[in-house]
Amino acid sequence: MTVIKVAILGFGTVGEGVYRTIESHADDLEAVLGKKVEVAAILIKNKQRERNIRKDVLVTTDFEDILNLPKLDIVIEAIVNKEPTFTFLQKAIERGCHIITANKEMFAHHGKHLIALANEKSVSVGFEATVAGGIPVIQTLRQLLKINRVQQIQGILNGTSNFILTEMREKKWSFAEALLQAQKNGYAEADPTNDVEGFDAFYKAMILSRIAFGEEPNWKDVEREGITPITSELIEAAEKLELRFKHIASISKEGTQIQVTVKPALVGKENPFYHVEGVENAVSVHSDIVGRITLQGPGAGMFPTASAVIEDLAYVCQNNNIKRNFNQTVSAELEQKKGKAKEFWLITGLSKNVIKPSITCIDEISNGVFVIRADKKDLDNLGKLDETISYFPILGEFESEVVSFEEKVSAL
Amino acid sequence: MTVIKVAILGFGTVGEGVYRTIESHADDLEAVLGKKVEVAAILIKNKQRERNIRKDVLVTTDFEDILNLPKLDIVIEAIVNKEPTFTFLQKAIERGCHIITANKEMFAHHGKHLIALANEKSVSVGFEATVAGGIPVIQTLRQLLKINRVQQIQGILNGTSNFILTEMREKKWSFAEALLQAQKNGYAEADPTNDVEGFDAFYKAMILSRIAFGEEPNWKDVEREGITPITSELIEAAEKLELRFKHIASISKEGTQIQVTVKPALVGKENPFYHVEGVENAVSVHSDIVGRITLQGPGAGMFPTASAVIEDLAYVCQNNNIKRNFNQTVSAELEQKKGKAKEFWLITGLSKNVIKPSITCIDEISNGVFVIRADKKDLDNLGKLDETISYFPILGEFESEVVSFEEKVSAL
Repeated sequence: MTVIKVAILGFGTVGEGVYRTIESHADDLEAVLGKKVEVAAILIKNKQRERNIRKDVLVTTDFEDILNLPKLDIVIEAIVNKEPTFTFLQKAIERGCHIITANKEMFAHHGKHLIALANEKSVSVGFEATVAGGIPVIQTLRQLLKINRVQQIQGILNGTSNFILTEMREKKWSFAEALLQAQKNGYAEADPTNDVEGFDAFYKAMILSRIAFGEEPNWKDVEREGITPITSELIEAAEKLELRFKHIASISKEGTQIQVTVKPALVGKENPFYHVEGVENAVSVHSDIVGRITLQGPGAGMFPTASAVIEDLAYVCQNNNIKRNFNQTVSAELEQKKGKAKEFWLITGLSKNVIKPSITCIDEISNGVFVIRADKKDLDNLGKLDETISYFPILGEFESEVVSFEEKVSAL
Repeated sequence: MTVIKVAILGFGTVGEGVYRTIESHADDLEAVLGKKVEVAAILIKNKQRERNIRKDVLVTTDFEDILNLPKLDIVIEAIVNKEPTFTFLQKAIERGCHIITANKEMFAHHGKHLIALANEKSVSVGFEATVAGGIPVIQTLRQLLKINRVQQIQGILNGTSNFILTEMREKKWSFAEALLQAQKNGYAEADPTNDVEGFDAFYKAMILSRIAFGEEPNWKDVEREGITPITSELIEAAEKLELRFKHIASISKEGTQIQVTVKPALVGKENPFYHVEGVENAVSVHSDIVGRITLQGPGAGMFPTASAVIEDLAYVCQNNNIKRNFNQTVSAELEQKKGKAKEFWLITGLSKNVIKPSITCIDEISNGVFVIRADKKDLDNLGKLDETISYFPILGEFESEVVSFEEKVSAL
């Protein structure tokens, strides 16, 4: 019986989770793959630190040691930053290794290149762990929705932001207090910019766009906003309407145009995202045949992310002769009725006398916080004139929901 | 270029949905499969009825006409009842056709036999459409959670029951009124027994059990109860506690013992099932590496079900040399902490003086409706003595939820 030799780059939360899972699930891997999976080497940064790793595993700070192993089948990358990881993975592919990555920033930037290179060398690239942690959204889009034409994907893709929003609402905390808690729990970095300003969700949205539509928009055209504009007061006002703030990445294609936004929005009780709380992630896929399917689960953490990597490993080993076709999904035009719900907004910083005829004030929820009905264009124009204005779309799927929302608001 | 020749058995909602989808997605199928998919024949019951079917399709009431087609690759079955469908599908396999079925009753009874026969003949069996309509739960379990050991599956698997419960709560309707509406909408049959007594969900649970654990319990050992014991009064009482009735199939393995229950239960706001409303289905899979993943989507309907069939068709065509291993999934023992939440019950028909020391009455919600904490065994014993007693478990995932629930209840 042959053995599958694996190297793990990085031994942080994800790297260690992958190592432990390969050890604990050795029998399952062998049962499914018909071969033993063996961790041959681990790339680390700091040789001094004590680690619980089997004696026969090569532990090194030099990637060249790993490349020079006599046998190496799969390289699993669980580091951060674009470099030197991109260089490492290119070298791994050149050597003929399959690669699996959990690094969204690197993969959003260089995924296309890595996949092209892998196709050339007839190896596979697994990247399930780059989006939504343990939720198998990449494989659902690639393997399970082959004939369905994806029309829109919406997702809560950043667990840290969702945790902060949840804590702010539940504990009536300020953003700063909730962020501190997220840092204490290990959900947020010392510098939280990547999470709270929406960069992390943006990278994931680009990866999803590529999977669903075969391409991504010009990065500069993407509206990206983090959760920092959301105050406790806004959250409280939203609660009066039974609405919750969620940080949502939305990816759709209208005609040949891919539309991506990554920003806070308000959702009502009937929206599947309303109840996605804490560090959970969720992804809702709207396709033409099946309609809307929502997947919810742990978006981060040692073992959920390791799960995505390990399932990729099984997939890669079982399918390593199947070439990836990254541009397979055909997309159809988005139904016209979509987006209607975006006509409702929660807005603050707006004086009532500024409201133009095209903007309907439906209700003042609390001092200076309004629910309005308006076109986005008009609000964008207002926003340009007055920087104190913040506005958030209230999401809903269908016209009837919008109408019932209007009734609810007018009944207040 | 070769052509994949398909026969569709049945031209009801599902059969027609499959036909229309193959027609409308001809280009997508050809792009993905590299071959044209062509409906060669359709089996119907009533030759008199007018149908919108292409002239070159053989439309027949005799299955032998279909078996005798010069070329036939795939037989899609969208009829009801166990027979003659089981016989038809056996013959189709014997002829060397892949089969795809949407018939849960037949598949729960004969799936094992059909798969064994298909393995013998080196053809595939697709049955995604038998469980949870358009939600790809079978393939998620088979393809995406290969290494994860499934520990528990819970599901809202019967859209009709969920619709009735939703209508009863939202519109304060009686069971009879809600059932009538379900029948008007085409969600329930004239004889609704199969749905409202839990048989449909039971069949689906048996199919899930086989996929997740490679086997199923003795059918007679399964606790199966429908939604008929749930009155408007009970629903109202549950609402006071912010709990909702859901009809839930639960499949787990403890040691070597497979436990399946199919019955109503109460869920709180934090449970992903709380917000699964109307004809939607949801399936929550708890596995050892990733934790809990929940899939939600349309559980029935012409196109959601057709979607499942069509995706099976793509899968079968792309994987027709891969033998199914139905017993692949290894299961681990369920964590001990599970099931603790089952100690809380909503109970009616119980006089306070019957309560034994082992049963703690936490609160009387309305006249004769109590929240209690008790062991199931004690309640089962009480139930045997007094047939007027009905009791429903209140679900929760973790101890902390139970505790917070207890706090909530005692604060009432």
